[in-house]
Amino acid sequence: MSTPGRERSGGSNMQVKDILLKKGREVTTISDVALVADGVRRLHDRGVGALVVTDQSGALAGIISERDVVRVLGERGASALDMSVADVMSTEVTTCVEATTIDSLMSLMTERRIRHVPVMDGATLVGMISIGDVVKWRVDELENDKRDLIEYVTAR
Amino acid sequence: MSTPGRERSGGSNMQVKDILLKKGREVTTISDVALVADGVRRLHDRGVGALVVTDQSGALAGIISERDVVRVLGERGASALDMSVADVMSTEVTTCVEATTIDSLMSLMTERRIRHVPVMDGATLVGMISIGDVVKWRVDELENDKRDLIEYVTAR
Repeated sequence: MSTPGRERSGGSNMQVKDILLKKGREVTTISDVALVADGVRRLHDRGVGALVVTDQSGALAGIISERDVVRVLGERGASALDMSVADVMSTEVTTCVEATTIDSLMSLMTERRIRHVPVMDGATLVGMISIGDVVKWRVDELENDKRDLIEYVTAR
Repeated sequence: MSTPGRERSGGSNMQVKDILLKKGREVTTISDVALVADGVRRLHDRGVGALVVTDQSGALAGIISERDVVRVLGERGASALDMSVADVMSTEVTTCVEATTIDSLMSLMTERRIRHVPVMDGATLVGMISIGDVVKWRVDELENDKRDLIEYVTAR
């Protein structure tokens, strides 16, 4: 089968900015001097899997994810909740830009085993893409392909 | 562009069993009478995002994920670690079978906002697929498409 009007190979030219257009640019952040317990509450309240950690100047200092919380709780037990976010966050943050393709973002997530990638415009944080966003985008793409194909077949 | 020898629409006929062939069928489980603290350690030790919870007969009773841990810690604080897994797990478990297509699995994950789907053969647990597995499979598929296309073009 071929789908009219769309690129037919497995790949896609879609970019991070296309996801941000639908998803919005809001990013949930937390200060590096907050406690892990605060981070846990914020993850829960906002229904997100990771927070961007900012330092006192507002610059990106790291990222703290559900996985980081589980890791430090597994290592330290309940006392981990009283540690500072700065002591628990991942400081090697993989970022992308709005022009990053979704295909290369998926490769990054797979290679580095990460589920959240902040989107930067220079030093400014402009969004966050999760692995769930990427899969949702792919599901939407497949739905669109299917609809295009049905329209094409029924219009002949 | 069209890729020879492969289906050309966005969709794919790949199934859960194709991922299990590469990934293996090991599933990390925990008893429903274990403590949340035990679950946290097991998630961390095994490097997985969710555990299948089994009851005393060995049957699937629920699933406990990093997200469940963060949720209950956000609600209860450190005392959540002393609760039993049964009190924290999600009991409405979405499962799939080996013949489930990856495309429909992605739809399920998106609709229900879940990242782990146990694979069942009747009442028997035969594997677990994570959202990371799905994205890795898609990355591999794109790599294969690219290689096929290069071979096709250079062989003409």
